[in-house]
Amino acid sequence: MLNFTFSNTTKMIFGKGVETQVGKEAAAWGKKVLLHYGGGHIVQSGLKDRVVESLEQAGLEIVEFGGAQPNPRLSLVQEGIALARKEQIDLILAVGGGSAIDSAKAIAIGVPYDGDVWDFYAGKAKAEESVPVGVVLTIPAAGSESSSSSVVTNEDGWQKVGYGALVMRPKFALLNPELTYTLPAYQTACGVADMMAHIMERYFTREADVGFGDHLCEGAMRSILQEAPKAISEPENYGARANIMWAGTIAHNDILGVGRSEDWASHNIEHELSALYDIAHGAGLAIVFPAWMKYVYKQDLDRFVQFAVRVFGVEQDFHNPEHTILEGIRRLEDFFRRIGLPTTLAEAGIAADRLAEMAAKATHGDTITLGNFMPLGQRDVLAIYELCQG
Amino acid sequence: MLNFTFSNTTKMIFGKGVETQVGKEAAAWGKKVLLHYGGGHIVQSGLKDRVVESLEQAGLEIVEFGGAQPNPRLSLVQEGIALARKEQIDLILAVGGGSAIDSAKAIAIGVPYDGDVWDFYAGKAKAEESVPVGVVLTIPAAGSESSSSSVVTNEDGWQKVGYGALVMRPKFALLNPELTYTLPAYQTACGVADMMAHIMERYFTREADVGFGDHLCEGAMRSILQEAPKAISEPENYGARANIMWAGTIAHNDILGVGRSEDWASHNIEHELSALYDIAHGAGLAIVFPAWMKYVYKQDLDRFVQFAVRVFGVEQDFHNPEHTILEGIRRLEDFFRRIGLPTTLAEAGIAADRLAEMAAKATHGDTITLGNFMPLGQRDVLAIYELCQG
Repeated sequence: MLNFTFSNTTKMIFGKGVETQVGKEAAAWGKKVLLHYGGGHIVQSGLKDRVVESLEQAGLEIVEFGGAQPNPRLSLVQEGIALARKEQIDLILAVGGGSAIDSAKAIAIGVPYDGDVWDFYAGKAKAEESVPVGVVLTIPAAGSESSSSSVVTNEDGWQKVGYGALVMRPKFALLNPELTYTLPAYQTACGVADMMAHIMERYFTREADVGFGDHLCEGAMRSILQEAPKAISEPENYGARANIMWAGTIAHNDILGVGRSEDWASHNIEHELSALYDIAHGAGLAIVFPAWMKYVYKQDLDRFVQFAVRVFGVEQDFHNPEHTILEGIRRLEDFFRRIGLPTTLAEAGIAADRLAEMAAKATHGDTITLGNFMPLGQRDVLAIYELCQG
Repeated sequence: MLNFTFSNTTKMIFGKGVETQVGKEAAAWGKKVLLHYGGGHIVQSGLKDRVVESLEQAGLEIVEFGGAQPNPRLSLVQEGIALARKEQIDLILAVGGGSAIDSAKAIAIGVPYDGDVWDFYAGKAKAEESVPVGVVLTIPAAGSESSSSSVVTNEDGWQKVGYGALVMRPKFALLNPELTYTLPAYQTACGVADMMAHIMERYFTREADVGFGDHLCEGAMRSILQEAPKAISEPENYGARANIMWAGTIAHNDILGVGRSEDWASHNIEHELSALYDIAHGAGLAIVFPAWMKYVYKQDLDRFVQFAVRVFGVEQDFHNPEHTILEGIRRLEDFFRRIGLPTTLAEAGIAADRLAEMAAKATHGDTITLGNFMPLGQRDVLAIYELCQG
């Protein structure tokens, strides 16, 4: 087990109706709130009105800033920074899913910084300060509500880049599972794939002596396997929605990854897919992760046997670990298909004509490797894209 | 799942040699440190010298206050409060296990309070402020290093009472598994029983739809079952010691109990045992918990079957849940015995002559009930003590 530091300071308020507490929580951080959201469903469902009412009752002044989009864009972040400075904002409140939260975080570190906010994402600067961020979560998936990272897309070259700094961690997050009742089945499934992937990126490590964390990861995955089909077939099943929502937070709040090197190759490989094609991040992960597994499992047969047996209850073939491993991967694919996700490019209707281009871009022209479980160069990444074809 | 609020703000720094970072962490909280510890091993092992050296290098002024004892006593806490006030202490640093930490926390809330610190434990006042507390942990067991509670014994009537308030949560905790290499096997085992009990007090709930938390609890327990015998038979096995140490923290930092009513009857029943007899808290729990299970399992057969199957891998008897349940309890007892703990009063050499007195005291003369899984009156508690006889 590696040495580590863990602290997660986000105050998480979870349960029925908790969004009505947003005014009280926000008031602890100042007088003037930048309300950042996407629009559409949040407005139509009346959630925005409820949030505004709670903020107003707490005596807060509100500056609205809508327009958050999937794959949050740098230009919107820059616009938000200018607005927040002009209005002397005390707190940024994101209402929505990972995209609204990620752009709120980027705005938050951009406001007190003299240079361009892209400097952080480009690795040219470190964020030392941040305007406080609060969250009302509507989509369990990205785990951004208590994570210390954010992903932003620079339209100049369509670079989708993540950046992490502890100052970005939201101060509070309000999680009401009822708000997820109206999520379409496909979006629920994409969120489930995302949280499974967040756990698997941590689970597949070459670090020894991480048994306690392994068991927590395995338990979290088993629970998601059990609850996700219920949440999809019974969208108003509070218990299933609540377990899935909390799983999404825990999957990405760092507690499952302490003391081990994490992987994250599959996330990087997927980013190129959803940058080029119109496919949701979660659906892309459902395609990439099984392919990554098939390519890398020989590096550590024991860990993949453990995954198959403990997470998917595969009856172990003690004489042939590969049988056990491949059955585990098959069951992961079956799970993704059962909840309505593609597990191959063909199933997603994506022509496999730009694989080499994506492999080159993911590895910056073979100048970097991806992942820690098995560091992957351009040829490896191309082979994984080929396995994605199905 | 119940609504809940979760935040755990303790900065946990874990791994080899981390105690040398204590000066840097402490310096963030002020200039003058009350160094609270038990003595004995902490002095002889050189740990105290290393801590003092790190604090001095960071420019901190140190006021020593040793004498922490198992079952921390109110008189010592009061003495510590007087000393901390006189010396105008900025931070209280506990070096030791649960006892040193619990009395440090009590001192910390007593310093800014006008009345007697016992008011908090007697339910007469709520702690609104606290001097910051830091921890160098030497015994994985109580989980006090990141919990928001503390247990103190009032010598007047030998009342052992717990009190919880978020302001008491330590600001930082340094956890080096190497410091536990020299723990005697019996003390290691007692710590293991304590952390298992902390998880089981949360696991045995009547709340529905807590599947995600169940799976985390089960994973944590399975890992402890796997690592504890290694830590005991190979005291310098870093991996086993590290997994056990981190398990002790997670078992009691609230993450495993969110969204459910917890039980805690067994802890209360055990407190009377260790108050009257010379038995360690962990050993007492190894006796009380199986007895409690035998008495209450009929309230929710499904949950006890789940425990037997998922935690102990019992082959389920689908036609007779009680066979499955009793086999699960037997395996828990076997585990405790295997690591060297008693599971009956007889095995602990305790004469069963004061059972009625303890049952009366635990229930305040049958005026309160214990626990939530099945609220227990005086007769129930007596029946459980009788089951403890073996």
